[in-house]
Formats: sequence, C-alpha cells, structure tokens
Amino acid sequence: MIPTIEWDGQYVRMIDQRKLPSRIEWYVCRGYRDVIKAIEKMVIRGAPAIGVAAAMGLALGGFSIKTKSTAAFMDKFKKMGQKMLLARPTAVNLRWAVERMVGLVERMKTDPVDEIKSALKEESEKILAEDIEINRRMGLNGQELVPAKATILTHCNAGSLATGGYGTALGVIRAAHEKGKKIKVIADETRPWLQGLRLTAFELMEDGIPVSVIADNAAGSLMRQGMIDVVVTGADRIAANGDVANKIGTYQVAVLAKANKIPFYVAAPISTIDQTTRNGDMIPVEERGGDEIFRFGKKRIGPEGVSVLNPAFDITPAKYVSAIITEKKVIRPPFGRGIKALLP
Amino acid sequence: MIPTIEWDGQYVRMIDQRKLPSRIEWYVCRGYRDVIKAIEKMVIRGAPAIGVAAAMGLALGGFSIKTKSTAAFMDKFKKMGQKMLLARPTAVNLRWAVERMVGLVERMKTDPVDEIKSALKEESEKILAEDIEINRRMGLNGQELVPAKATILTHCNAGSLATGGYGTALGVIRAAHEKGKKIKVIADETRPWLQGLRLTAFELMEDGIPVSVIADNAAGSLMRQGMIDVVVTGADRIAANGDVANKIGTYQVAVLAKANKIPFYVAAPISTIDQTTRNGDMIPVEERGGDEIFRFGKKRIGPEGVSVLNPAFDITPAKYVSAIITEKKVIRPPFGRGIKALLP
Repeated sequence: MIPTIEWDGQYVRMIDQRKLPSRIEWYVCRGYRDVIKAIEKMVIRGAPAIGVAAAMGLALGGFSIKTKSTAAFMDKFKKMGQKMLLARPTAVNLRWAVERMVGLVERMKTDPVDEIKSALKEESEKILAEDIEINRRMGLNGQELVPAKATILTHCNAGSLATGGYGTALGVIRAAHEKGKKIKVIADETRPWLQGLRLTAFELMEDGIPVSVIADNAAGSLMRQGMIDVVVTGADRIAANGDVANKIGTYQVAVLAKANKIPFYVAAPISTIDQTTRNGDMIPVEERGGDEIFRFGKKRIGPEGVSVLNPAFDITPAKYVSAIITEKKVIRPPFGRGIKALLP
Repeated sequence: MIPTIEWDGQYVRMIDQRKLPSRIEWYVCRGYRDVIKAIEKMVIRGAPAIGVAAAMGLALGGFSIKTKSTAAFMDKFKKMGQKMLLARPTAVNLRWAVERMVGLVERMKTDPVDEIKSALKEESEKILAEDIEINRRMGLNGQELVPAKATILTHCNAGSLATGGYGTALGVIRAAHEKGKKIKVIADETRPWLQGLRLTAFELMEDGIPVSVIADNAAGSLMRQGMIDVVVTGADRIAANGDVANKIGTYQVAVLAKANKIPFYVAAPISTIDQTTRNGDMIPVEERGGDEIFRFGKKRIGPEGVSVLNPAFDITPAKYVSAIITEKKVIRPPFGRGIKALLP
C-alpha cells in the first residue's frame, strides 16, 4: 500500500491524490504553506489524513521559525496554527491536530526551542502512527457488524488514502475481508471529485477485494433491488447529537438506506467527534469552485458561463445513522448519550 | 431553438447530442440502419425523440425497399420495424412509433408501394409535429402545479432535445416561465452521460430561464435545506400502475423528495404509458457500457480494469409520484385507475 503521507528526511511528502490512479506522483512540502496549499487543492484529502497533514505541516512550520526565545516561538507557531485552520472548514480533525500541536508547545514553554522543534516532528509522526492503529481497532470493532457474506456500499474514499493508512470505512471492509468474510464492495464514483472511482476502487483492487463502481445515481436503485446489505461511510465531523457531516451525497445514501431498510454505518475516529458542535446544522459546509463540475481536466463540458452550486459536504441527521463505529466502541442511538459517555 | 431532428430534403438529420454543448453538429442518416445506430449511440436520446427518430428511420427504410409488390414491401418493412425495436429497450415510445408506422402500412395494404412510401414520410412528420403540440399542451397542464415563485429541480434532460421540441419536464418549466412565474431551475448534472449539465443547462440558458447545475449528490442536501419547491422529470416508460422508468437516479430524487415533503411530478405524453406492462419491475432496464463511467472522452479516469455497473434507467414506484402530467390531463393517485380512465 502506498503511504498517504510521510516524512522524507527533511520534508513532508504526500501522494498527489489529484493524479491517482493514472499517475503515482509525490508532492513535496518544504514548508507549512505548502501543506496548507496541498490541503486546499486536495493533493491530500479525507478528514484523518488532513489532520495528519496539518500536524506535519506545523512541525515543518516550527523548523522554519528563527528564534531562540520560546515565547516568540510560541507566538509565531500559534499564528501558523491559525492559518492552518483556514485550509478547509468542515473536517474537524484539522482543528483537533492543530490544537494538539499547539498544546504540545504550551506544555514545553520552559524548554529550549530546538527541543520543541524536534518534539513537534515526533508528535506529528506519533499522530500518523496512532491514526493507523486507531483505524485497525475501528476496523475490528466495525467488522462485527458485517454479515459473513455481504455486499457493502461505500461513498467517497474513507480508505488508506483518506487517513494515515488502512482507512475508516475501508478499514471496516478490510477487517471483514481479513476475517475471511465474503465481501463485495459497491463504490459510488462520488462526483464531482470521483474519489470512489479514482481512489476507493484503486485501493480495493490493490488489496484484492472485489469492487464495482457505479454512478452515484445508481445507489438507490441497487438498494431497491436488494443488491446492497450494508452501507459504511466515513465522516468529516460528527456533532454532539450524532449528526454527521461527510462528502456530498452521503445524506442521500443514508435516506435511501433507511427507505430500503439497510443499515447505514459511519466509521470515524473519536477525533472526528466535535462535542462543541451541538448539531449538524452548525457545521460549516465548504462550497468549492464550479469548475470541479463543469470541467474535466482542462476541458469544459458544460455550456459557457453555466452557473454551478458545489457544496463539498452535506449533513446526515442522526436519525438515519444505524451506528457510529469508533476505535473505542460501536456507538448505537441515542448518539447524544453514547458520545457523552465515550468522551471526557 | 435548434431542431432535435428533421427531414433534410432526402435524408433525416439530427443534432449530435454527444457533442453538445461544445459543438453543434448535424448527424445525417441516409438509411434506417443509420437511425438505429444513432439511437444506440445516443446521438439522439429521450423517449419521445427516440419515437420520432424511429418513425423517420422507418420512413427512410421504406424508401430503400425495392419492390412493386405491397405484400413484399410489408414483409420487408415489418422486419425493419423488428430491428428498430432492438435499438434501445426501455423507452416504450420506440415501440409505440414502430407500431404506428407498421399500422399505417397495414391499413394501406391495397395501395401502391410508392404511395405507401410517401405516406410513411408524411406520418413521421406528423408524429414530430404532434409531439411538439403534445408537449405544449402538457406544459400548460403542468404549469398549473408550479407555484408563482418556485425553484424546480429536474433530473436528466426532458427538454426540447429529448422530444420533437419544447420538452416534457422542461415544457412544464417553459410554460410556467411563459406564464410569468418566477422560476429558477436546479439541474442535476446526471451522471454518467451528463444530460443535465450538457443539455438541460444549455437549453434553459438559451431560453433565458435561470438555471444552476449541481452534482447529482447535492440534490438531497438542497432539498433538506428547503431550497427546492418542486421536482419535475420526464419518463421513459410508465407502467399501468403508475410506476415510472426514467433515467438512472430518478428513483433517488423521488425518495428524497418524499422524505422532504416536496411534490415529485412526472411529465410524459400518453405514448409513454404502457398498459401492457403491469408494474415497473416488468420494464426492461438497459445496462450500458462501463466506459460511460470510467472514461471522459478518450481519457481513462478509473483504475485499469475496474469493474463497473451502469444501469441506464431505474424504476420509481408509483407511491413516490405526486402526479403524472400528460397532454390530456394531470393524473393523480391512484394511478392505476387514472390511467385506465384516460386510455382506451
């Protein structure tokens, strides 16, 4: 499996997900601004992967601060953190990672700057390693919900490429497969960015897990025909009441699953749960440029001057979610209570 | 407005819808086989337009039959009709048009072949003219269901380009606009073939009706946010019980409309209603090639060798349909009774 992101000696490099699967190209970030740009432009995407990238980006940023004063360092570092937070608004893992890195600097306020810099790099590597471990535990918890023989629909890419590795929703699928369950996957292609076609299908084919891609438009019809047993997706942010922000189209899949009596599971690390957000309608939803829809590559497909609405995420109300799979446990409704019990 | 299809002196020509909106190119059919190919390859698409094309194609076919014997002519003509029927399986208007043309030949069985040939051409022109007139009447009936100020979601292209002219679903929208109603349209881009982005947006922009395109994935989220007042789509076949076969994704839109208490209307000529099909699950649904999904133009987007499911249509059970708008009247549930009352 290709690593999503890693330290490459001095710098941070990530697989350029805009080019996959046609080309496997490294995108090298030499400073924290490169990482912000990579997140904005979707060189790297997926809530947990964005968290790891933000942490590594801030560690890079730390190295670039020229001062011996810890107080001055902290001041500059926090400003970098503020800028990092603006890269993308919806996934809360970005904020979580920034807060963790800033917290580390605050705890080291009596230490020399060079030690803080090294500690930041180590912390970012720890976040990456932890994320992979968390996904494996999440996978083990989640696979228990998967029947011995099942066709699983997933939306977008909540796989290795969306995380430090292994994946959230695809982690559940991988774990079920590793347990010897007979799994087939239906991957929504996931317009406009085609994460399902380009990334999910690619990852699963590499792993030898049977996968077929469909237009997002076909998901409901397959459900109605009894061809889907389980739905699993990731999440970009989960509100305190269990409402889920995830890739645009997730809400539709959830409503259709309910209409067809199919369980709809969300797999996400605890760092995706945002207890400060009371419900889904308080989650900021990023609106992206229309060219994601009316262009393919450089070629314009739509009519000249066409108006486009392109929200990148949507909100799935908790009532459509059958369970939230985390690394600690599977949370069942009512989610408000379950989340409160799980988190400090 | 560009004509969808027309007689061009000797031959039949149609706008090549695969090229729109980037290029406006005529596709000239010199014989009935050219028309079959044009229907198969989606040079022309949309149930009513396919009906018109089939009629014109058979008229072309008639001219190519070299015999003075009416009996021999009829025999060859019926064989052409059988071949025409196989071009695409779902839209019933194709069968309707073939039966109408064969019926004409049967009624003229004592007439000379040359007269039959001319009559076939005239009949195909009549089917085209009638279709436009039917759409105008459908539009007038349907616009009464549209509030004075409304945002209307439509899926695929049920417009001028899907018909002889004016459109079914877009006919309703055009009629509401012509009545001075304040209409905005949200067009699903409609993967995989992007009829919404390429054709619906193009048609409405030409007419000065405000339109925004969305990824199909965003329709549900806009509904949930109260941004859609009405949904109108066309149909490829309506079963005797009111179940509707239409472009893949229509079922999803209908389920989401119901979940969000938004009326879901289907606009279709009576020739789209198939009383011999008891319910939707008896309608054959065409499966098209996977390259519609994993390629854009010649460029492969998905991973090498990816498996794809690509049903071109889906079935919307009658319980999700608020009304069926026809040229004669608006049919309300229960549709079985309404359809029986309307048709001989």
